[in-house]
Amino acid sequence: MAVRLIALYAPPEDPAAFDVHYRDTHTPIIRRYPGLRDLRLTRPEGVGGRPPAYYLMAEMAFDSRADLEAALASEAGVESGRDLRNFAGAGVTLLIAENASA
Amino acid sequence: MAVRLIALYAPPEDPAAFDVHYRDTHTPIIRRYPGLRDLRLTRPEGVGGRPPAYYLMAEMAFDSRADLEAALASEAGVESGRDLRNFAGAGVTLLIAENASA
Repeated sequence: MAVRLIALYAPPEDPAAFDVHYRDTHTPIIRRYPGLRDLRLTRPEGVGGRPPAYYLMAEMAFDSRADLEAALASEAGVESGRDLRNFAGAGVTLLIAENASA
Repeated sequence: MAVRLIALYAPPEDPAAFDVHYRDTHTPIIRRYPGLRDLRLTRPEGVGGRPPAYYLMAEMAFDSRADLEAALASEAGVESGRDLRNFAGAGVTLLIAENASA
């Protein structure tokens, strides 16, 4: 897991609708990313009983930064970005995490 | 890496001072967490040339949720929480990420 694209989704107004859209529409788009090595989905919890700042964390792993950039620029990458407006109105924070060792 | 405590640090006012404190004071406290299996530090980047929402991501891995909770309740866990006020004034977002498979 050398390079990850991490998407942190803010708590949605309608979690059930979010879940259905993410599972049935968004995930299949992500699975078409060229070079995708792993997709890890986490429902985070807060610490000390506090509600978590994010509802869903998606970690998409690639072998290299170049592969990640190619995936974002691909047809599936463009489509996934466009699809955000269909379910991520509460907001999404995107990060690229590159580790020297992983 | 079955269970992770993830700390997302907002961009500090003084990155150089943050770095020195994180490296010389905060990291040694975290290293004393009982049961800590891995500490992975990442300087995230934004996507599409946008500045990243977070300056530093620290991922602390444990074998189990019980080990993570024990680490947070330990002397080092309490001390690390107290130390946040010394360098993380810009804010820190804490998440617990538990994956069925990892």
